[in-house]
Formats: sequence, C-alpha cells, structure tokens
Amino acid sequence: MNSADYLGLPVDVPSTALFTDHYELTMLQAALAAGTADRRSVFEVFTRRLPEGRRYGVVAGTGRVLDAVENFRFDDGVLGFLRDRRVVDEPTLEWLANYRFRGDIWGYPEGEVYFPGSPVLRVEGSFAECVLLETVILSILNHDSAIAAAASRMSAAAGGRGLIEMGARRTHELAAVAASRAAYVGGFEATSDLAAGFRYDIPTVGTSAHAFTLLHDSERDAFTAQVDTLGRGTTLLVDTYDVTEAVRLAVEVAGTELGAVRIDSGDLLLVAHRVRQQLDELGATDTRIVVTSDLDEYAIASLGAAPVDAYGVGTQLVTGSGHPTCSMVYKLVARAHSAAPQAPLEPVAKKSLGSKSSRGGRKWAARRLDEDGVAEAEVVGTGPVPAELAGRQLLVELIKGGEVLAREPLDAVRARHKAARGLLPLSATQLSRGEAVIPTEHVSL
Amino acid sequence: MNSADYLGLPVDVPSTALFTDHYELTMLQAALAAGTADRRSVFEVFTRRLPEGRRYGVVAGTGRVLDAVENFRFDDGVLGFLRDRRVVDEPTLEWLANYRFRGDIWGYPEGEVYFPGSPVLRVEGSFAECVLLETVILSILNHDSAIAAAASRMSAAAGGRGLIEMGARRTHELAAVAASRAAYVGGFEATSDLAAGFRYDIPTVGTSAHAFTLLHDSERDAFTAQVDTLGRGTTLLVDTYDVTEAVRLAVEVAGTELGAVRIDSGDLLLVAHRVRQQLDELGATDTRIVVTSDLDEYAIASLGAAPVDAYGVGTQLVTGSGHPTCSMVYKLVARAHSAAPQAPLEPVAKKSLGSKSSRGGRKWAARRLDEDGVAEAEVVGTGPVPAELAGRQLLVELIKGGEVLAREPLDAVRARHKAARGLLPLSATQLSRGEAVIPTEHVSL
Repeated sequence: MNSADYLGLPVDVPSTALFTDHYELTMLQAALAAGTADRRSVFEVFTRRLPEGRRYGVVAGTGRVLDAVENFRFDDGVLGFLRDRRVVDEPTLEWLANYRFRGDIWGYPEGEVYFPGSPVLRVEGSFAECVLLETVILSILNHDSAIAAAASRMSAAAGGRGLIEMGARRTHELAAVAASRAAYVGGFEATSDLAAGFRYDIPTVGTSAHAFTLLHDSERDAFTAQVDTLGRGTTLLVDTYDVTEAVRLAVEVAGTELGAVRIDSGDLLLVAHRVRQQLDELGATDTRIVVTSDLDEYAIASLGAAPVDAYGVGTQLVTGSGHPTCSMVYKLVARAHSAAPQAPLEPVAKKSLGSKSSRGGRKWAARRLDEDGVAEAEVVGTGPVPAELAGRQLLVELIKGGEVLAREPLDAVRARHKAARGLLPLSATQLSRGEAVIPTEHVSL
Repeated sequence: MNSADYLGLPVDVPSTALFTDHYELTMLQAALAAGTADRRSVFEVFTRRLPEGRRYGVVAGTGRVLDAVENFRFDDGVLGFLRDRRVVDEPTLEWLANYRFRGDIWGYPEGEVYFPGSPVLRVEGSFAECVLLETVILSILNHDSAIAAAASRMSAAAGGRGLIEMGARRTHELAAVAASRAAYVGGFEATSDLAAGFRYDIPTVGTSAHAFTLLHDSERDAFTAQVDTLGRGTTLLVDTYDVTEAVRLAVEVAGTELGAVRIDSGDLLLVAHRVRQQLDELGATDTRIVVTSDLDEYAIASLGAAPVDAYGVGTQLVTGSGHPTCSMVYKLVARAHSAAPQAPLEPVAKKSLGSKSSRGGRKWAARRLDEDGVAEAEVVGTGPVPAELAGRQLLVELIKGGEVLAREPLDAVRARHKAARGLLPLSATQLSRGEAVIPTEHVSL
C-alpha cells in the first residue's frame, strides 16, 4: 500500500515523515550523539481520563496508523528541507535517510472500546525508531477516536435508524475523510463525502440543497428537474419555502413512490409528525423522512418518538460532539540501560508536579466479564497475566519487525465496535454525564 | 502552483475535486438535464452568528481556497470512481472531464476580521461551476478561520510574549498543517510541526520531551547529551523529577548562557516565579522560561503577571478553543432567469422555518470608522455603495475568469490581521463573553 491510499487521494504520496514535531528529531540527534539512541524502548499510548461525562472511548484510526508507519520515510526532498533549515546535523540526516521502522507494534484492535489507562497502542524498538513516530500516531488516534466516540453515541441514540455523515464542510478537507471513516466505525452507514467513498469504499449519498430549488423559477420546476434525472426514489428537500405546500408538490411530481423528503430546519419533532401525517394522507406511506438540522446525540435521542427514518449529522459529528480530541499521550514506559541486545527493560515514569504522572512498565490489558458475560473491569498490568484473564487479553500484534501483520476491512472494524459496545453494561450508552462505565484496575504481579 | 503545495507535502497531488459532497454532483446532473446549469449565479459565504461570546471572527484559509479552486479538476481516476459508483450519469461525467472554474471570486482579504453577515467570499459564474466548489471552500474557511480566531485571542492575551503552536498531535495530521498556518495568521510566531515549516515556511522549534530524560540513566546525563549536541542556547525540560533540582542541574550543565527552561506541569504561576528567582540567583538572568501545559487564552492571560517569556499552545489552539468550526455557509443569493449571457441577476433567498433565513442579492461590504479611526459598524448592502463608504470597501478580487489574481506571502496576511484587529474598539480583545464588538448594518439602496 502506498500513501496515496493513506491520504484518500488518487495520487502517490511518498512520505508521512514530516507529520512530526521538530523535537522528535532534535531528541534523535542528541540520543545518537550520546550513544543512547539504540536502547531498546517501549512507548505506550493511553489517556489519563475520558472526555468529561463520557462513559467509554472508541479506538479508531489504527488502520491509518499502520499506513502512516509504513510510509514514514525520509526522501531527498524531506532531507533537503531538514538540512536547509538546520533542524538536525549531518550524522542525523544520514541516519534518517536509512530510516524505516523495524520494531513491533501491539494495540487494541480498531473498533474496541477503551477506558482511562488502557494501553491502546504499544510501540517497541530502539528509542530512536520509536520516538519519531509519536506525533503522527497521536494525530491519527486523537482525531479518529474522538470522532468515533461521538459517532458511537449517536448510533446508540438512533436505535436502528439510518445515520448519514454530512460534516465535510465543517472540518478540514482531509480531516473530513478520516472523520467519515471513523463515523463508519462508530456505526454510521453512509457519508456525503466523495473522497471518503473513493478511499474507504463507504457508501455515499446526496440529492440536493436549497440552492437547487432557488436556482429554478419555481419549486415545481426544481422538483421536476430532480425527479426527471434522479428518479422517483430521490429525496426532495421540502423546506425552502412552505413545507406543507412542498410536500404536496413533491408527491404530485414524484408520485407515491417518492423515496424520501428531507427537512433541514424548524422544530423537527413537530414538523416530522406533520409531514408524516400529510405523506400518509397522500398515500405516500413508504416515503421516508430524513432530518438534517444541527443534530447531535441528544437531538437524535429526542427525536426517538418522531416518525423519522434517517438522520444526517454534520458539525457535531466531525467536531466530536464537544470533544474534538481525546487527550491520548505517547509515553516512554520502559527502556534498557544499554544498547546491548539482551539488556533488560526497566520501567520508567515521570514524577509529575500535577496530574500528569504515569505508570512505568510494559503493560498488558484484559477486560474482565461478570458471570453474565458483561464487562466489569478493564484490568491493566505489568508482569505475568493472571491465568483467568489470559483469554480476555486486548492487545493484538499489529506490526512485527516492521512488517504490518493485520489489515482488515472497515466492515470488520465496524462489527467489532458494535460487539464490544454490546458487552458493556447497559448504562454505557446513557447520554447523561457520568463516569467510565467500568473501572480500570491496575495490577502488578 | 500544483496541489502538492496545497497539501503541504513533497508530492504532486492532481486534484481537490473529491473534497466534495455527493449532492453537489447530483444537483449538477439535474441542472444540466433541466437546462438550468448555465444560469449566471452568485454564491456568498457568511456566518449568521459568531461563536458564542466571541467579539470578532478572523478570515483565514483564503490562500488555501485559491489553491483548491485552481486544482479542482476531474481526472480519469476520479471520473472512473464516479462512473463505477454511479454517482452521476455519462453526460455529467463528460461535463466534469472539461471542468475548470472560469468564474470570478471576490472576498475579504485573508487576515481581515469579520462579523455576522459579512460576505467573506463571493463566488460568481454559472450555477454549475459555482455549486461544485461549496464543500471544499467551506471546509477550508470553516476550519482555518476557527483556528485563526482562537490564535488571535491568544495573541492578544499574550501581549508581546512569544507564542508557539504545538498542537499537531491533537488534531488530524493534515488539519495540523493548516492549523499551524492559521495560527501564524492569528499572531503565533513558530510551530512544532515540520510539515508546516516545509509547506509554509513557518519557523519550527523544538528541543526535548520527558521521554528523552527518562531514556537516560540520570537527568544530568540527559541534559549533558542535549547541551552537547544542541548547544547552550537550547531549552531544557525541567519537570521530569524535581523542578528545583533540575533548574540547578540545568545551569550547572549549560552555564548561565542556557537558552531557556520549559515547564510542562504544575501550578505554572507559582512555579514560574520560583524558577525565575532561582535562575536569577544562579546568575542565569537571560535564561528564558517557556510554559506549555494545557494553555488557552484564559490561562495565558492569567500568567500575565508571571515571569514567563513564551507560551507553547497545543490542544486548545488546534481545536479553536471551544469552537473548532465557525458555521460559515455557502448560499445562492442571486441568479439569472435564463442562461442568456445578458439575463439580469435576481436576488433569491430561502424562507426558512427557523433561524436559517438569509438575505438575497449580491452584496458589498464596508467597515465604517468613527472620527478617531476606530471601527464602528460593518455595513453590508446590495445595490450601489454609498459614496462615504466607497473607500472602506472590504471585498477584493481574488480570481477573475478563473485566473488567480492575488497570492500573497503569509507574513503580509499576518500583518493585515494585526492591523485590522488594531482598528477595532478596545473591547474586541476582552476575553469575557460578549456580543460582536461592532454591529452589522444591512442597507439596500
């Protein structure tokens, strides 16, 4: 796979190496000079807390991380830039020219849920090869997991009704592509974003905007133009002028086979009921109602009793419904005392002034279930895994010796998320603010 | 300019055409079939409101919009995708194969401030050629302007002190590059993001993280390794273990020429005072203090009395400090009744159920100043411009007949923002929540 796929563009993109903070390279230079760069090291990605009020997190972006690591190479253009700007010295540039990641990466499989302290990714190798990956790994996981968490809550709130991601215009144009992917993982079914359809094969949908109605001399002309070319199964937008008149006209133009009507403004609960009644009276009993106005998981839930068939969600989805990032960090948790291949790993941790302390040591994680098969604790530990948890371990090997082991179709990831969420206590999908739905227990054996 | 530059990558990216919502293309198909696609049309970008409590907005991303419009082409790969997925029919695909934007774009120059109703961009041409650009234009302006607005507030709060953008790890890897750019427009001076340095020539900075200290057998080893290779002017991170001991050690290792120390946790106000006193007592009176822990504009302001020399800002900057998008919309405001070249433009507007109404007509905008030269109103109108406002008009021509007229260096944009903000009433940069600092007056002559 080349990084064209990674970016979601029909192009060849040779490198992800510059999605990197300057200090990763100066640390590399200093460690190379000091002879400490080759010490075997373990970095872990985790969060200290969930966003306020949230009950679980959703791991998303893992597949994108694998692509980014594979394409993390320093070509001549990049090296020339680093040389011109004197970011690092010549020995470091030579080292970078030969860089590729040759270590191991373990992680929670994409779509899994996580909790505070869950080691969602573990990167092992020399200090030098691992430290460089910090920025791009965090960019991807922090963004994608934030969107997936919002999508998952919306999906739970929607029950079985359709969910369409429509937020491309509310976020950076390439963040939008990743957001569509994360929304799909979290339970959405389709996107408006063509680039997301191109890159990830997510179904794309769309019909028309108010501008299309306003372009024409009358609403009738607009509806006729749309139905003539897109067919009676299309979705007509009925709130440009008067909704009741538009619904009447829509059925007159398209007949009772009209696919759907879309409502994009007003009191959706009230309007949806009125439109449903009107459609039924006109005989368009199979015509669906799609609503799309500034929805979030609370608005979706509040429309649970309304005759709505599908929700289109934009702003609140692609901005993580109040939490556009999820504070994952990438921390050195263990390293060898020397560069000798057999030097044992020793745990390390910052002793912080504030709340930024972390736990040293290379960790495993397992989810303990109660006798009914419902999750009751996230168990995170160092040392041997207790026998009773051995079958419930969460980390899987993703990259071994630099080779990607585990790529999977997005539908499998989506199914995994649904299954993982289904094993959580029922209160996981309550929308009210609360604590993590299961506690994280730290053990050290 | 090719889209490699657009993406901030050392590559050739042929097209931005898929950063587009599905419905833009189905509307195109329907308008082509109905014979309405060639009606001359005017679309405007504006917001109905500022984010809650904000007093002004900042236009950012205009330069990226110009690149995106220039690179909006449908090549064979893209057309093949659209055909395979049956997004549009064959006549529409043929039309797209020849697409390039040949219309005109006017807009607020990048870096300007804006208010509710300000027509920050105006796109004119056939309906077909203009409607396609909606999604990518909004993606760019909504994202970049949100970041620039947060940056501007932080810059005002920081007074003359240094501001470093460090948020790459908290947002999508390419959104991060655009965020660095927008932060620079808003008043930041440097970034940690190497891709932003590569693409936009923004100064990049960085030294070391806690992992570097933890890699070494002692803090002394770590400091020595860093100073040996990066020089005494480097910034040492002093809060891995004990701050007082670390500051003592830092000056011992680097001498009083030590460039700076960085504090990344704890009560920054208290710690900064203590560290300053210690540095001064050690004779390191020129050693600067950089702080970097979860800062936003309020935290920056609250450190105004602390002996801090520079702020590194991450999460809150790249997520727009609570407002990661800015609700700009792209609305058809006027169109001709026929495709005849001389057909007059007629204003159009949605009559909405809720608060989504808009004002029809092709608009001009001017900022009226009081006798002291301070802005007192944003005047937005249709029809002729009043003589007294003719010299204060805000829109400039950016693209004419499809050709980009106005590219400018980012430093000019940054200077423009500073100047524009400086003409606002003093209360503009108050951090307390309030209304837009000047009213928007709508006139129609």
